[in-house]
Amino acid sequence: MIVQIPKDSDFSIHNLPYGIFSIGNGPKKIGVAIGDHLIDFSACVENGIFSNVPLQVVNTGVLNDFIALGKKITNEVRSKLKELILDNNSWLKTYPELILKQSEVEMHLPVHIGDYTDFYSSLEHATNVGVMFRDPEKALLPNWRHIPVGYHGRSSSIVISGTEIHRPCGQTLPKDSDIPIYGESKRLDFELETAFIIGKESKLGHPVKTNEALDYIFGMVLFNDWSARDIQKWEYVPLGPFLGKNFASHISAWVVPIEALEIFQVEGPKQDPQVLPYLQFEGNKNYDIQLEVAIKPENCEEKIVSRSNFKFMYWNMEQQLAHHTVNGCNIKVGDLMGSGTISGKEESSYGSMLELSWAGSKTIAMADGTERKFLNDYDTVIMRGHGEKDGVRVGFGEVIGKILPALKNE
Amino acid sequence: MIVQIPKDSDFSIHNLPYGIFSIGNGPKKIGVAIGDHLIDFSACVENGIFSNVPLQVVNTGVLNDFIALGKKITNEVRSKLKELILDNNSWLKTYPELILKQSEVEMHLPVHIGDYTDFYSSLEHATNVGVMFRDPEKALLPNWRHIPVGYHGRSSSIVISGTEIHRPCGQTLPKDSDIPIYGESKRLDFELETAFIIGKESKLGHPVKTNEALDYIFGMVLFNDWSARDIQKWEYVPLGPFLGKNFASHISAWVVPIEALEIFQVEGPKQDPQVLPYLQFEGNKNYDIQLEVAIKPENCEEKIVSRSNFKFMYWNMEQQLAHHTVNGCNIKVGDLMGSGTISGKEESSYGSMLELSWAGSKTIAMADGTERKFLNDYDTVIMRGHGEKDGVRVGFGEVIGKILPALKNE
Repeated sequence: MIVQIPKDSDFSIHNLPYGIFSIGNGPKKIGVAIGDHLIDFSACVENGIFSNVPLQVVNTGVLNDFIALGKKITNEVRSKLKELILDNNSWLKTYPELILKQSEVEMHLPVHIGDYTDFYSSLEHATNVGVMFRDPEKALLPNWRHIPVGYHGRSSSIVISGTEIHRPCGQTLPKDSDIPIYGESKRLDFELETAFIIGKESKLGHPVKTNEALDYIFGMVLFNDWSARDIQKWEYVPLGPFLGKNFASHISAWVVPIEALEIFQVEGPKQDPQVLPYLQFEGNKNYDIQLEVAIKPENCEEKIVSRSNFKFMYWNMEQQLAHHTVNGCNIKVGDLMGSGTISGKEESSYGSMLELSWAGSKTIAMADGTERKFLNDYDTVIMRGHGEKDGVRVGFGEVIGKILPALKNE
Repeated sequence: MIVQIPKDSDFSIHNLPYGIFSIGNGPKKIGVAIGDHLIDFSACVENGIFSNVPLQVVNTGVLNDFIALGKKITNEVRSKLKELILDNNSWLKTYPELILKQSEVEMHLPVHIGDYTDFYSSLEHATNVGVMFRDPEKALLPNWRHIPVGYHGRSSSIVISGTEIHRPCGQTLPKDSDIPIYGESKRLDFELETAFIIGKESKLGHPVKTNEALDYIFGMVLFNDWSARDIQKWEYVPLGPFLGKNFASHISAWVVPIEALEIFQVEGPKQDPQVLPYLQFEGNKNYDIQLEVAIKPENCEEKIVSRSNFKFMYWNMEQQLAHHTVNGCNIKVGDLMGSGTISGKEESSYGSMLELSWAGSKTIAMADGTERKFLNDYDTVIMRGHGEKDGVRVGFGEVIGKILPALKNE
């Protein structure tokens, strides 16, 4: 092994996720994480180690052109990287400058995201929201068990882990009033999600079938879909969430190849009633990936407020993609598809403050004795996720976002 | 004048819209329309005629980098182009190969569209939809007169005028059933819209005010927001339209600079109740632009089915942009913002078949004696728009889309 990999590292030899990094004012390059280090993949290509990778695809500042080479090549790269890292006499040893510490580089958005879609695929989350805001007797809407419900989100405001964001302002409707007011959101929330990144484009008019879907999925990230619940509540009927969501979303820096997650495939929840043929699939298509969310108030230790699992999802990624394209909608390399909030059955596994505080009717204690119903200014939200099986650990690292006070725009 | 401009041309000397064209298998270049011709603007820059325009911004295959130069430069270019065209001894005369016939070039998407947002800003359209699908007594939802309601759409499936599209398939709920079926949409519709293209980026967290908005708007196009009403109806609660819309949208080829439309500014409808301060504006911010929609069945003349006007809009573009960014959502050069269906008070001005056929309860006669409630396979929908005042005519040309039968994806 060319570097020491700490026990319990998300970035084991079985992972090898890709990201975009820079050093100082240097160019954006492709890196591959290993333990606490990363390998300067762009430089490896420049040095001729990956003859199947054209130089121009590793110097664009995003992964899109590399990903677009296709799975045959990216999987060859993956195998070769594994060899290089495991080999004590590796060529890499003669170029120690190509092995960097993650703590010494700056990470950037891994892909240019053309379109971003967010699904709503957790039965427990959809049910909780329905119970709180609609009729507890009819919490799930009639279409929910037939359609992996989704909607389009905003690409421009998706930012890399670590970026600080401002509390959003907007219109809300005060209780017992029918006149809206302008002001800061008072119900700022996170949503615990994963997202997958498209690795192969489809043609307009041509659906992707469930049994082809994996070929179109390059990899996965963690995703925090920030939500301003009070803005969302006033605006979302009839055309869906807009300003309550599009002020920012955070993604984790390292894109974990879907192949690295295959070992964690498990059976999903039984789907009842049976879904239409275009949504049927074969095999285990859920993934056992443990997830957690922590809130860290300013100058205080973090407190883990949710422990969930990606395996809870009712609709799987193959179904999401088959549904998204069944009408001929085309997808492009770099498109991002969010899972929707991932909640489990237990209260401790709910993936948003909306659910954890049950619409503000309960409080969550922080390590410093303060309490939260929603998020305060200067709170940092940290999400983590990893799979672990048979001694193999593959994880996403963290997605971190800190909330700064609203900007005054008078 | 270096070319003859037909009387009633949309592309008068007062217009000078930009587009992306190619000849045969040649590169995509920037063109400027004049009458039935276009000027090869990229070649003009290569020949050093526009010293303020760097060569690399006119050879990217889209307008984004040119637009991003900013209004100071693009308006200088506009003045200079006008001079060159009006001058009988123009430099252009010595390079006749730079003046091409529009009929001899192929047009392409004018911009790389990062994010696409669609508004819902016609009071008459929103009211008609409310009457048909909800409560006629409460046709407008409570938020409608307070918020320029909008939602995110799909960028990847926006195509250039002339592209043929397939009828979409998807899930619909048959009447008197609670079990959805898969099949072709039987209620395929157009939506008559305009759209504006962002010309200047804003920073995440920093709203654009109404009085700054025009500086962020580069120009406008016509926009056909195809809609599958049966798919939309079953899917859209609670997160809004998705597959009912994202199978395709058509935009016109020529981007009309917002400056060319200033002469058509008129007062908009009175907004009552008064809007919140961040949505208030000064001056006349609606535009008197006549719009029409024709349906042309296969082997038959077209029939004009709607005559509407952009001046009917309740919410104006400055308000749309101020609202979109009030929460700090950032915008990028090339983003597209659709108006929403533009309907007037008169039935003849309704901007969709949904309204014209009143949800399928009436028929519209075609020139060949056939009737339509919604669109048939092989129908071509043609939208046109222009302003005319004091002898000045500025128009958009046409946006054309033909519907092919659904692809069988068994």
